[in-house]
Amino acid sequence: MSILKGACIIGQSGGPTSVINASALGAIQAALASESITKVYGAAYGIRGVLDDVLYVMDEEDPAELEHMRYTPSSALGSCRYKLKDPNVDDTDYKRILEIFKKYDVRYFFYNGGNDSMDTCNKISKYCLKNGYECRVIGIPKTIDNDLFGTDHCPGYGSAAKYIATSTMEVYQDARVYDIGMITVLEIMGRHAGWLAAAAALANYAGSGPDLIYLPEVPFDMDTFLADIEAIYKKNGKAIVAVSEGIHDKDGKFIAEYASSGDGKKDSFGHSQLGGLAQVLADIVKKRTGAKVRGIEFSLLQRAAAHCASLTDIEESYAAGRAAVENAVAGVTDKMVGCECQRGADGYKFNIKLLPLDIVANTEKKVPREWINAAGNGIEQAFIDYALPLIQGETKMAKENSLPRFVKLKKVVAKG
Amino acid sequence: MSILKGACIIGQSGGPTSVINASALGAIQAALASESITKVYGAAYGIRGVLDDVLYVMDEEDPAELEHMRYTPSSALGSCRYKLKDPNVDDTDYKRILEIFKKYDVRYFFYNGGNDSMDTCNKISKYCLKNGYECRVIGIPKTIDNDLFGTDHCPGYGSAAKYIATSTMEVYQDARVYDIGMITVLEIMGRHAGWLAAAAALANYAGSGPDLIYLPEVPFDMDTFLADIEAIYKKNGKAIVAVSEGIHDKDGKFIAEYASSGDGKKDSFGHSQLGGLAQVLADIVKKRTGAKVRGIEFSLLQRAAAHCASLTDIEESYAAGRAAVENAVAGVTDKMVGCECQRGADGYKFNIKLLPLDIVANTEKKVPREWINAAGNGIEQAFIDYALPLIQGETKMAKENSLPRFVKLKKVVAKG
Repeated sequence: MSILKGACIIGQSGGPTSVINASALGAIQAALASESITKVYGAAYGIRGVLDDVLYVMDEEDPAELEHMRYTPSSALGSCRYKLKDPNVDDTDYKRILEIFKKYDVRYFFYNGGNDSMDTCNKISKYCLKNGYECRVIGIPKTIDNDLFGTDHCPGYGSAAKYIATSTMEVYQDARVYDIGMITVLEIMGRHAGWLAAAAALANYAGSGPDLIYLPEVPFDMDTFLADIEAIYKKNGKAIVAVSEGIHDKDGKFIAEYASSGDGKKDSFGHSQLGGLAQVLADIVKKRTGAKVRGIEFSLLQRAAAHCASLTDIEESYAAGRAAVENAVAGVTDKMVGCECQRGADGYKFNIKLLPLDIVANTEKKVPREWINAAGNGIEQAFIDYALPLIQGETKMAKENSLPRFVKLKKVVAKG
Repeated sequence: MSILKGACIIGQSGGPTSVINASALGAIQAALASESITKVYGAAYGIRGVLDDVLYVMDEEDPAELEHMRYTPSSALGSCRYKLKDPNVDDTDYKRILEIFKKYDVRYFFYNGGNDSMDTCNKISKYCLKNGYECRVIGIPKTIDNDLFGTDHCPGYGSAAKYIATSTMEVYQDARVYDIGMITVLEIMGRHAGWLAAAAALANYAGSGPDLIYLPEVPFDMDTFLADIEAIYKKNGKAIVAVSEGIHDKDGKFIAEYASSGDGKKDSFGHSQLGGLAQVLADIVKKRTGAKVRGIEFSLLQRAAAHCASLTDIEESYAAGRAAVENAVAGVTDKMVGCECQRGADGYKFNIKLLPLDIVANTEKKVPREWINAAGNGIEQAFIDYALPLIQGETKMAKENSLPRFVKLKKVVAKG
């Protein structure tokens, strides 16, 4: 093992999750405890904080207060959606990053995010290598979308899935309460992969789920959908449908862009910004069935609802953050922390593994077609077996007056 | 005390809450334990179950299974929004109700609902009295809207308030995460009274709340609103606003009906069904500020999210149900169960009181003007002092596989 002494930077990037701070905490605590790491910086708003020279000195934070990061949703250090250019085309940002790394003697860089963030991580890693600057770079995955390649699942997914399943069950109770007919359309995040909408099937497993579930993995056919929902509505007087925001027709056109008039096949009249997919579909279904239809969008809540987080997800997210630092200190670089899991008669087992950054970056993982039923409107047991272990256990979030007690960081800015 | 022997009917009515089943359970368990009550019926879909002669025999349910009603949201017996006619104009329904009462020897009628349900309760009570049929009638209040007259608060409100405050805090964390400007508009239920939107101020109390809160109690002025939000956005780069769905201008026109074009003062183009108030306001704010704006509607979740219920609310709801039966058996009739509470140095105390049904029915209670700030865009401490005790304590909902375990009733239909 080669010992490398120097400071580290931890950054958070992309859309937040309810457990991304648990990963940051794992990394921060491991870094603070490491003899190789001389100073622990948190980048303000991800890579922007490096470019802008705004780094928070995590060593200055109260250790007891830091503990609250474990249960605080969203990115406590701030996030960004900044995409680095190809260094062969424009290396301005990279030069600046290297300048800041040298200024603070940064020898460890940990970046916590999804696909784009792993791309950032990969580019910085390769740039440092190419320019002979020794800096160990490790990506820590997070995304409620669960679409990162090479890892069994992504930290953040289990908590979002649990919120979606729980809320779907509660809506199910409510949406069936009246003596009159009623159709409910649930819109769930997921532009390209259907992992989140599939989580509504966990509600079915628990006895109160949607009649139909549609993912972007299968082209959406409006006529078939309307026939399906009308049949269920006519039979039961109620129907609940869950859809990924990213469902699209066979030509790749998002259903959210469909007009809400006529047979639902007209072009958008430019009003689509007024309502999301749930409203568009609710309007089309209402016209077809004459039923009372309600569209519900889980919106930001599905990625922010830390009060309903999965303890398994919190613990795994924390472990991923720790593993990043521990492996880097031990000499590893240019990797992403991933996980490989076992599910079987012995229960569920979670293990850390390391993946090459350039394989992970920019590759999307979809829900396997065989986990979706043949008709493309429901989810198979294989998905339940996969997802159920990920939502287990309840958060231990501290409360004050029965409301969440979120972390309050001092955010002392480093003076170079 | 005059002893009256006979069967009882318990009905649930109006929009459900996450704790209305706790009230039903309190009534059912007290009735099952009472020597005066010979049979306990649950009306299927409220008063419709009486009119349609569909009564569930609660004596047939497994007592251990019934316990799950305490933590199951929505109305387990089913609900309705059926409004009884004035008996002086058309007494068809009343004759039918009396027929069913006689058929099953019903001497106790408990009806759990909001304003309209108390009206139903009152009319049935008066009709029985007028026709010399001895039946003790008691209303059990529930409504997330908290707008029932004569009671300190309504069962159901505390849990909805807690969900709104918690979710607002979580959205606050998320909505401030990026390095770019962002405005968030939260739409909260409450057509005529602003109790629910005011609950967003509890998030401020806990340190992560909206910058502006608007209730229907104060006429909404679009120009002032846009100036207010623009000033906050220019200063902070972020702004969060919470609005009651029922906000309206000085002429009484709902803001949800405003067009989304121009200065936001045009008439609706008929597309308002495409999006609710949050989207309408988000669109107007976006045009004015140029900021990224996100509208979020808490929708059904605020009345169904039993996983985030207040234990205080659950216990009070249960107590209200029990009190209805115990008082009726003791001779009381023609009343609604209400509560009077003390808040002070000795803490919070809850007591049951009884109110005449005809005073309660059809009277709405609004948020006092002095609990809203002078500018009409924020909430005063007096409201916090009022509401904070109502959200205390966590649900003890049973879970299976870390998902809610809701009640499964047999629903054995009574044969007359």
